[in-house]
Amino acid sequence: MPQFDTVIRNGTLATASDVFAADLGITGGRIAAIGAGLGSGEREIDATGRLVLPGGVDAHCHLDQPSGDGSLCADDFESGTRAAAFGGTTTVIPFAAQFRGQPLRDAVADYHRRADGKALIDYAFHLIISDPTPQLTGQDLPALIRDGYTSFKIYMTYDDMKLNDRQVLELLDVGRREGAMAMIHAENADFIGWLTDRLLAAGHTQPRYHAESRPMLVEREATHRAIAMAELADVPILIVHVSGREAIEQIHWAQGRGMRIYGETCPQYMVLTEHDLHAHGFEGAKCICSPPPRDEANQAAVWDALAGGIFHIVSSDHAPFRYQDPRGKMLHGPDTPFNWVPNGVPGIETRLPILFSEGVKKGRIGLQRFVELTSTNPAKMYGLHPRKGSLAIGADADIVIYDPDRRVTITNGMLHHNVDYTPYEGLEVTGWPETVLSRGDLVIDRGTCVAAAGRGSFLRCDPPELAKPRPAIA
Amino acid sequence: MPQFDTVIRNGTLATASDVFAADLGITGGRIAAIGAGLGSGEREIDATGRLVLPGGVDAHCHLDQPSGDGSLCADDFESGTRAAAFGGTTTVIPFAAQFRGQPLRDAVADYHRRADGKALIDYAFHLIISDPTPQLTGQDLPALIRDGYTSFKIYMTYDDMKLNDRQVLELLDVGRREGAMAMIHAENADFIGWLTDRLLAAGHTQPRYHAESRPMLVEREATHRAIAMAELADVPILIVHVSGREAIEQIHWAQGRGMRIYGETCPQYMVLTEHDLHAHGFEGAKCICSPPPRDEANQAAVWDALAGGIFHIVSSDHAPFRYQDPRGKMLHGPDTPFNWVPNGVPGIETRLPILFSEGVKKGRIGLQRFVELTSTNPAKMYGLHPRKGSLAIGADADIVIYDPDRRVTITNGMLHHNVDYTPYEGLEVTGWPETVLSRGDLVIDRGTCVAAAGRGSFLRCDPPELAKPRPAIA
Amino acid sequence: MPQFDTVIRNGTLATASDVFAADLGITGGRIAAIGAGLGSGEREIDATGRLVLPGGVDAHCHLDQPSGDGSLCADDFESGTRAAAFGGTTTVIPFAAQFRGQPLRDAVADYHRRADGKALIDYAFHLIISDPTPQLTGQDLPALIRDGYTSFKIYMTYDDMKLNDRQVLELLDVGRREGAMAMIHAENADFIGWLTDRLLAAGHTQPRYHAESRPMLVEREATHRAIAMAELADVPILIVHVSGREAIEQIHWAQGRGMRIYGETCPQYMVLTEHDLHAHGFEGAKCICSPPPRDEANQAAVWDALAGGIFHIVSSDHAPFRYQDPRGKMLHGPDTPFNWVPNGVPGIETRLPILFSEGVKKGRIGLQRFVELTSTNPAKMYGLHPRKGSLAIGADADIVIYDPDRRVTITNGMLHHNVDYTPYEGLEVTGWPETVLSRGDLVIDRGTCVAAAGRGSFLRCDPPELAKPRPAIA
Amino acid sequence: MPQFDTVIRNGTLATASDVFAADLGITGGRIAAIGAGLGSGEREIDATGRLVLPGGVDAHCHLDQPSGDGSLCADDFESGTRAAAFGGTTTVIPFAAQFRGQPLRDAVADYHRRADGKALIDYAFHLIISDPTPQLTGQDLPALIRDGYTSFKIYMTYDDMKLNDRQVLELLDVGRREGAMAMIHAENADFIGWLTDRLLAAGHTQPRYHAESRPMLVEREATHRAIAMAELADVPILIVHVSGREAIEQIHWAQGRGMRIYGETCPQYMVLTEHDLHAHGFEGAKCICSPPPRDEANQAAVWDALAGGIFHIVSSDHAPFRYQDPRGKMLHGPDTPFNWVPNGVPGIETRLPILFSEGVKKGRIGLQRFVELTSTNPAKMYGLHPRKGSLAIGADADIVIYDPDRRVTITNGMLHHNVDYTPYEGLEVTGWPETVLSRGDLVIDRGTCVAAAGRGSFLRCDPPELAKPRPAIA
Repeated sequence: MPQFDTVIRNGTLATASDVFAADLGITGGRIAAIGAGLGSGEREIDATGRLVLPGGVDAHCHLDQPSGDGSLCADDFESGTRAAAFGGTTTVIPFAAQFRGQPLRDAVADYHRRADGKALIDYAFHLIISDPTPQLTGQDLPALIRDGYTSFKIYMTYDDMKLNDRQVLELLDVGRREGAMAMIHAENADFIGWLTDRLLAAGHTQPRYHAESRPMLVEREATHRAIAMAELADVPILIVHVSGREAIEQIHWAQGRGMRIYGETCPQYMVLTEHDLHAHGFEGAKCICSPPPRDEANQAAVWDALAGGIFHIVSSDHAPFRYQDPRGKMLHGPDTPFNWVPNGVPGIETRLPILFSEGVKKGRIGLQRFVELTSTNPAKMYGLHPRKGSLAIGADADIVIYDPDRRVTITNGMLHHNVDYTPYEGLEVTGWPETVLSRGDLVIDRGTCVAAAGRGSFLRCDPPELAKPRPAIA
Repeated sequence: MPQFDTVIRNGTLATASDVFAADLGITGGRIAAIGAGLGSGEREIDATGRLVLPGGVDAHCHLDQPSGDGSLCADDFESGTRAAAFGGTTTVIPFAAQFRGQPLRDAVADYHRRADGKALIDYAFHLIISDPTPQLTGQDLPALIRDGYTSFKIYMTYDDMKLNDRQVLELLDVGRREGAMAMIHAENADFIGWLTDRLLAAGHTQPRYHAESRPMLVEREATHRAIAMAELADVPILIVHVSGREAIEQIHWAQGRGMRIYGETCPQYMVLTEHDLHAHGFEGAKCICSPPPRDEANQAAVWDALAGGIFHIVSSDHAPFRYQDPRGKMLHGPDTPFNWVPNGVPGIETRLPILFSEGVKKGRIGLQRFVELTSTNPAKMYGLHPRKGSLAIGADADIVIYDPDRRVTITNGMLHHNVDYTPYEGLEVTGWPETVLSRGDLVIDRGTCVAAAGRGSFLRCDPPELAKPRPAIA
Repeated sequence: MPQFDTVIRNGTLATASDVFAADLGITGGRIAAIGAGLGSGEREIDATGRLVLPGGVDAHCHLDQPSGDGSLCADDFESGTRAAAFGGTTTVIPFAAQFRGQPLRDAVADYHRRADGKALIDYAFHLIISDPTPQLTGQDLPALIRDGYTSFKIYMTYDDMKLNDRQVLELLDVGRREGAMAMIHAENADFIGWLTDRLLAAGHTQPRYHAESRPMLVEREATHRAIAMAELADVPILIVHVSGREAIEQIHWAQGRGMRIYGETCPQYMVLTEHDLHAHGFEGAKCICSPPPRDEANQAAVWDALAGGIFHIVSSDHAPFRYQDPRGKMLHGPDTPFNWVPNGVPGIETRLPILFSEGVKKGRIGLQRFVELTSTNPAKMYGLHPRKGSLAIGADADIVIYDPDRRVTITNGMLHHNVDYTPYEGLEVTGWPETVLSRGDLVIDRGTCVAAAGRGSFLRCDPPELAKPRPAIA
Repeated sequence: MPQFDTVIRNGTLATASDVFAADLGITGGRIAAIGAGLGSGEREIDATGRLVLPGGVDAHCHLDQPSGDGSLCADDFESGTRAAAFGGTTTVIPFAAQFRGQPLRDAVADYHRRADGKALIDYAFHLIISDPTPQLTGQDLPALIRDGYTSFKIYMTYDDMKLNDRQVLELLDVGRREGAMAMIHAENADFIGWLTDRLLAAGHTQPRYHAESRPMLVEREATHRAIAMAELADVPILIVHVSGREAIEQIHWAQGRGMRIYGETCPQYMVLTEHDLHAHGFEGAKCICSPPPRDEANQAAVWDALAGGIFHIVSSDHAPFRYQDPRGKMLHGPDTPFNWVPNGVPGIETRLPILFSEGVKKGRIGLQRFVELTSTNPAKMYGLHPRKGSLAIGADADIVIYDPDRRVTITNGMLHHNVDYTPYEGLEVTGWPETVLSRGDLVIDRGTCVAAAGRGSFLRCDPPELAKPRPAIA
């Protein structure tokens, strides 16, 4: 009788800490053993020449999330999680976003309905709080945190979601009491509004002006303010999708003062620049996201912060708006002014390949750091570790078998999201996910999806260890 | 027939990345399997309620190292490695120190003779270069690096060892070409000399004036200069035994500029202060080390840097000089002027317990970070990973079984070094190493040493991954 | 026939640059000559052993300014300017404050009515903008700037005056186009509100909690944000009443980046601390001002910034609320909660004596720097130089003859404001103004006021040179 | 009978503080009166449309200073001071440089012989200490300071003059006790040596490699170290000829910590770049000076530091080596390797015109700041104020009448030094000195030199106010 349900044999395992050759045995959907020459498995997978990694955790992505402007989030939990799995990701944490006036629990219920029966891989939810009433901060949010929704996102910009500083402080204080992690989108809404109106008044409506409406200091200021609020509320925070040097400097400054300020960045800030918004015609809209891609010097700063430990996680911020679509980038027609173009780029499938190729293969970061940034740290940041994000015994057998040498030229045709473009069209990468398991089940088998929608489960998150304030040092 | 030589059962394993319950199987001196319910072992060790950690790597300690001043290094490779093992350390990297005029290979041969047949655990050597002749930089050092001596220490102070900036640059350049890691003792010799002479001229000879002769800026300046030299030579460096805020700020500043500047600190900078040098009579000499312990604010800065990732390794800087001894602290009698007191404190056995108790138990750092600082990172820093410093399959079965709850009041009587005092006398700690294995052999068995001198082996080090310059980002 | 109307003879003249012995001749209200052994004057003033300085310019004081909360500004333009003159100040720049909904020109007209026939010395007005409608930013403010109201104050806190970031940007942009100087009260209103409500909810209503409701980071954050807005609008700004280290660091950081960020501080941040708010009973209310006084370390930072050139002007921020008064500090009775206590301390008469004694006499700053901070720079900052703030030929003969050696213990009884206390009661100072001239007229003659209300004139201000953006350096 | 010896009528006077129209009367070589419509002078000078400024003080220039390498300082005290006067400078402070082994007083005597009977304008001496024996630090230097040589220069590089850190500390300590100002040439000698040897070994001997042998961090490191020594010795220092951003950042950092660190820069860092060293053939040698000119970004940093108050004085660092000369730049022939080319550029005559044109005329600094940087602050820095550097009554009538509108294209043919080139050949400037007076004597009369060699006097300097340590702030 085989000793394991599955054995992955002869691979090179990598964790956030170590890299070594071993077999890996799976039983009951969990990692049961790691060792040399393990006994037989019912299913045997040969991983010779392959990396065996904990599956990616994409902790920042938007799936089936409606907006007030009528735009359409083109990926639902089926297409989105399928694309994720193809890209080596085995856990996603999209958002359950509250509309203003909506009871928070209703929002959560709504998103569960959207996900039920759809997901191919496991998922948790971050909450988005847009209306922090006393009922919410006093009752609903604490209850939901205890129910396993242990992170929430705060917007400092976007009219329909932004909170003022007072509201942010109230929420951080809830997070402190209940042990939840706050994610902060740090851009100054007023600065953007003022710049945008000046640009529009000057007739500057093309996509390229999106970048001019959100220069680096828009992000730097909000980052400094977010850090001040974290200091005042005495609570760690995560600054999401950090785009360049000046915001990094603020985070680094706070870290140097002993604060637990975490930073996230995304592939778009590693390989795109504002010049991609200058593409002829309306093409630049494909790369409109906020904060916008910056320049080469800022890319270098992002890489330094990835290598040097200033950043903690790499997410996709997958925002699936179609390009040639009246509910996508062309929301107001083929000349939609930049400020009406839905913000975001798709990237749920390309996150690991881009970081692996540009980071590990080019020698900017090590393989362990790659695992840490894409899998282990996101799981830790949101209370899913060591169940997710690790090759620990007893952990869910969420595993990606990665071909480190396969050369791929990214085209949208090869991707599995429901978006009609990729901002990385033509990018050549080395390395690609080959086979993906979720709780021991094959999801992607040598490039073919073999999992059914609905097999993915909802994950209750623990209060993250990283959300704890540091103890006073007397 | 038992499946393994040894099985450690029911423990909680911790790596630099993960913590989880599992059994650990050892065969042929190496870790063969990690899993739930592993098969039987010839020897079975019950680790219920215990932590199972990769053995400590003490990458900065002095054993049987003669000095020019006639002082005696009281621990040889037997007593020193025995004490290390009792303290949960399974690898030491002491120094092979060159005297001026001595061919470097002769120094290495001398230290091999000192170690042969003595060590209870494995050991490698750092080189100390005090005389960088063209022969040394051109031939001897490169050859030794290729032979497995892949790190060297540079002193910016101490008359018999200090190098000038030009010499430092020459050595860093060798390190760059050959892939060796440079460790730098960063204090400005001229500043110290000037201050010392003024103190002595004023009749200030007591131990407390040692701290006044080496204020924080003595270290800050040299740290800045070392960083400048690393930048000029384009090579990573490690600043050893960093004692407080201003040096940390320099390191943090360099890290923020994208440089690979690593930092080491030691328990003496976490729990001692300069007030310990003020003890009545000559007692303060027990805590004379360089840089000196600082104050509480600097301790806090050290903890922040440990928690925040600015530091990479924690070493003991074990320097075993006896107190009541004419070849120890009382080198020139019971009133030896501070500048003639041999520098250093013993601590090879207390390194893990102090960091575990003050760090992990008090919530300042997590358990994984503890493993990273004391074992994994030192192994990586010096080219011993993953053979040492990990629980990886195939790694040497160097393991410490740690009782996380045992309460101990440190006294010198309970320690196993050959020194007549400990600077930590009376310190209460929680947690202590219980059982220690080296390459699968029991060395410490529930508090008893069961290993023979000479079982420890010399380790050839690889060129450390961390010593590689970061690639240019075009 | 006498050559001059007045000759001040044998004094030591001091400007922002030089100190030298000379006579000074006045004709037609202006400085006509400076020289050795000048010809005779109709009036001769012997200044032997005295300093002859340009009269003080107090560029931040509140006179006859009504508030929405029913509190009373106890000094009108008569008592306020009389007290100012006694303190060596010959020009005041109080505020013409707009109520929300009030046309800006009406506010200005109202303040002219308040000042007409009252002032003993010359005065200009800063505008306070609380309602920046398009009419105001498009028409009214530009017109008033051209009419000589070339500075305006922006509040980032206080419910009835605070502007949001967008409004601040609009105003800075007007300032840029028209050449006006923006003064910014930098505290984060939301942070204060959140902290205040928590303190009140905990029953902490005593004056001492005022300081806890506005910790240093409240000011630091707003200072950073103000700097960001100045950078975005590309215009110099002045941060008023800076209280301590962290705000200073932000200003210094901006200056290091080449920005024209100016800083003002006040005597209350040099000699008071938060402990003064801890006085028994309600006495602490006497020292409630915003930002609050900090601690000794912050005082040291303020002195360093005064000496080192980080600050540009010293003002009083005179806010004359009586203590034992239902329209003063006891607005809601003798236990008025801290958040209802009118903010501000009186100090229009003590500004020069405190800075002279604590600064010049104690060797922290030189005499030229004293003149620069109290007279020359305020005149330059607001477009009154060289007519005011200098001993230049042709300048208004606004002169203070200062006894540098007179020892005075400050008591409220000796002061001339209409307030029933001084926060500096009992402070011993060395040096005091003796005789004061305004446009050549004696106002204070050896300690006696000899000027009539109404002799002071309104001053139209030029667009300040310092408000110009720095030219681009290609 | 005329009231004054000389009256300068109808000019616009400018001091470091003020700008105003007035006449200026001179009697007995000193400024006797400033006023409107002054009485008549024996000599009347019409300054309509002209600026009347305190004469320039060039506090860093080399005249008749022999070197150990056989190179020739082409300007003696006659040609050098004549050129200075043509350029609007009325006081020079060249160096009395000690050779190693030479008693310091002998060096001083030697330089007095060189100057006697030669100078057209007044002069003082800085000492250069190359051999700080106990006799020197204990006796000779203190005595000379008391005799009026109140500043000394310390070299951290150049083999024949560099001091080690210990020696620097000894000298700073003398400066502290005696009240002298230390000027520090901050470049790391070892770094330069290491880089130079590598460049030479690679055959890179052309002038352009001079810049590569002294990159910015060579200067940054030494600046940090100099600041640390000033902190340790508790004494202000001046960092001379600062060339760019990283050194400026160190100075700014120290200033932000409350230290009195002063900075000097020179025209070569405002208008030259390292590209000027790339000129074809050996032409680049004309711009070899140390530190070398940097790039445009560093020029911008220099201007920011001039405008923002980080720098305190602008000097020429005039170093008059001829180009086509075997004792000049071609010391070892027309292909003299860069490391043998005498260091320095001539500029004693062009200092004011370049700063005026590039600074004042282009709006980067104001006219008062120009006076402060070129005249008032140098006089204060070295104990010559208010006798020099001011338009104070009683001050020496050292005055330059400046035509602010004259357009000049700089060529070497129009200059009056004894050097065969100017690095500013072809530079177009606006504004030029027209008439220059020294102690009331005409030296340059509308472009013609009318003074005789030897009329200039030696100036004893007071202990500079700026050299005092800041008082402790309890």
